[in-house]
Amino acid sequence: MLIVQKFGGSSLADANKITNVAKRVAETYRQGNQIVVVLSAQGDTTDKLLEKAREINPNPSKRELDMLLSTGEQQSIALISMALQGLGLSCVSFTGPQVGIHTSSTYGSARIRSIDTERVNNELERNNIVIVAGFQGVNRFGDITTLGRGGSDTTAVALAAVLQADLCEIYTDVEGVYTADPRVVKNAHKIDVISYDEMLDLASLGAKVLATRSVEMAKKYRVQLVVRSSMSNAEGTLVKEDVKVESTYVSGLAIDKDVASISVMGIRNVPGMAYKIFSLLSKEKILVDIILQSIGRDKKKDISFTINIGDLPKAMELLKNNQDNLGFEDVTYDDKIAKISVVGAGMATHSGVASMLFEALYSARINIMMISTSEIKISVLIDERDTDAAANYVHEKFFAVPAR
Amino acid sequence: MLIVQKFGGSSLADANKITNVAKRVAETYRQGNQIVVVLSAQGDTTDKLLEKAREINPNPSKRELDMLLSTGEQQSIALISMALQGLGLSCVSFTGPQVGIHTSSTYGSARIRSIDTERVNNELERNNIVIVAGFQGVNRFGDITTLGRGGSDTTAVALAAVLQADLCEIYTDVEGVYTADPRVVKNAHKIDVISYDEMLDLASLGAKVLATRSVEMAKKYRVQLVVRSSMSNAEGTLVKEDVKVESTYVSGLAIDKDVASISVMGIRNVPGMAYKIFSLLSKEKILVDIILQSIGRDKKKDISFTINIGDLPKAMELLKNNQDNLGFEDVTYDDKIAKISVVGAGMATHSGVASMLFEALYSARINIMMISTSEIKISVLIDERDTDAAANYVHEKFFAVPAR
Repeated sequence: MLIVQKFGGSSLADANKITNVAKRVAETYRQGNQIVVVLSAQGDTTDKLLEKAREINPNPSKRELDMLLSTGEQQSIALISMALQGLGLSCVSFTGPQVGIHTSSTYGSARIRSIDTERVNNELERNNIVIVAGFQGVNRFGDITTLGRGGSDTTAVALAAVLQADLCEIYTDVEGVYTADPRVVKNAHKIDVISYDEMLDLASLGAKVLATRSVEMAKKYRVQLVVRSSMSNAEGTLVKEDVKVESTYVSGLAIDKDVASISVMGIRNVPGMAYKIFSLLSKEKILVDIILQSIGRDKKKDISFTINIGDLPKAMELLKNNQDNLGFEDVTYDDKIAKISVVGAGMATHSGVASMLFEALYSARINIMMISTSEIKISVLIDERDTDAAANYVHEKFFAVPAR
Repeated sequence: MLIVQKFGGSSLADANKITNVAKRVAETYRQGNQIVVVLSAQGDTTDKLLEKAREINPNPSKRELDMLLSTGEQQSIALISMALQGLGLSCVSFTGPQVGIHTSSTYGSARIRSIDTERVNNELERNNIVIVAGFQGVNRFGDITTLGRGGSDTTAVALAAVLQADLCEIYTDVEGVYTADPRVVKNAHKIDVISYDEMLDLASLGAKVLATRSVEMAKKYRVQLVVRSSMSNAEGTLVKEDVKVESTYVSGLAIDKDVASISVMGIRNVPGMAYKIFSLLSKEKILVDIILQSIGRDKKKDISFTINIGDLPKAMELLKNNQDNLGFEDVTYDDKIAKISVVGAGMATHSGVASMLFEALYSARINIMMISTSEIKISVLIDERDTDAAANYVHEKFFAVPAR
């Protein structure tokens, strides 16, 4: 088998951990597999480099920031290669530019355009383990670019796609994808198999194991993903298409505390008002999630919606500056809220998921502020202080299996 | 003017020093010059990376070591670029491979074969300051190589040569080349102008300001070098050809404590014995410096010679293992010795330099163990404990000018 193995920064934090990663790679290699290893920067290297940069220039150019940050992964690939060679294995390391990972020119958040496979395939044919720096590539000017958040996962999935690998293993510090955040929900358990779409929903709803972009790419190119722990031999979670829906019609629970709601009140009841409000926000790249519209006093409308908490100051400023123009009476916000979502491909064919969710929250005496539903998920907005209780009650309702 | 400015690691050790270097570059740029900046890794970065590598593999592959070490200079160029941009200047940084510094394949001590000038010239024409990572290049496999000790100086001189720069400034933590080590000789003073050949002799004799290789290259391509301090505005030392010999027929004094002497005694007085001994050493790449041969007891010969102290254990082992084969009576060594050399192009036309040197040592009651002379230098071997006294007496004799 051809396997792409990706290891994150926490799995590479010191010499011991690097040796452990090398041993794991060696084991897979000795079982007769061809291996491409993709690495992040060690531990908090990237943060330290960012700090160094900010000390010198609080607003550094993105090209030079990419030049700086890309050294983190380059150090990782050299160190892992040395560890593998210490185990008697033959390997060769490549930076993103060396392997020919061609990207768009957007420094700091470049997109992969194409990957040259010749050099990697040559080395694999010579029975070498190939080590590739994640998170980086080269643009048409020959400059180093980085791929932004979750970039190393993207590198791994993209390499698995172009090399037509049999498997892409994402090693991390948890044992896989869980039905809910184990730090919040004590009975949360690992999911064995999940579909791309469910994983996408969980990822975008705040489960931080895999970046949305890499799951999208895996789905597009049909790359079989496994999320597993670099510290144990547990089997992990397999992400693939067409998961058979059996008894588990709900696959997981996502918690997102980085939300805020805004209520625009007393909007004149004429057509086009909602359009005007949301186009104002979208021009500033503010993503709106759940939207609730109701008729208020004097037949005027109230519109409430949620956004990422980071966009709150900008959104409030925009709305206030356009109050006269839009003609509403008042605008308020709430940043002490949380979103709990239940995700599952089985939901579409199972009725009653929504009522089970509401029942669970009712039994915990938790007030629901907003509700949003789609084919494979239901999200509710609650008071931030109720998050843990809500998560545990809801998890208990849907995943009433004994904790492992 | 087109000026290449090279800054060493101690000039880049922290954010403050980086800002200072940027200010100096900015000043030269604002005077209307075109500038190429060549940088080493910050402070002790290279040592720390080496330590990291050794922790994982005590004997890492040189290819992977170059992959690792080259990140140090890459970080420097990004940080300086950010500092220059913070000062409102337009600049662009390049790694060795990006600029097209093509080298031999010998990882860890690669030689520069050629340099592409197109990308640098394009940026200079756009009035950009060009920042280049020193110490590194790319070989014909597309792999990153490093140039070994003094590699950043070599990068700077090579770039100055191919770009036909008017000047190559080597910034360091001392004010220039001195008539002797100022830490040893209190009256040592800075040399204003020195020829390539004299500088080469001083460099190879232990004056550590410039690596021999970069001076050789400067001589070959007629690159005007200036060695000066990054901490002050002092003028530094100009290294060029055809320095007019006036009253100063001796240009400097070099002290080398990293020497050891070996005496092979009781060698049979037949032809070819010296050849056999020295070919044995040269096969193992042990460089022999001063050689002294004398007739000992029973018409047998004694041969003494000096080597670098690092080669002493190997040389002694080799000689002992071949004692029967070579047929000598005994071999001893002395590692508590020092070499003091007086260098000057004027020496060839001024008689009496040797006797002045001997007189100085005699007046200090210092015993001379060995003597070696060439056209532009005289070296003597003395007891290591006499080094400071000898250096001061000799310096006083030849450079009897008031300290500045």
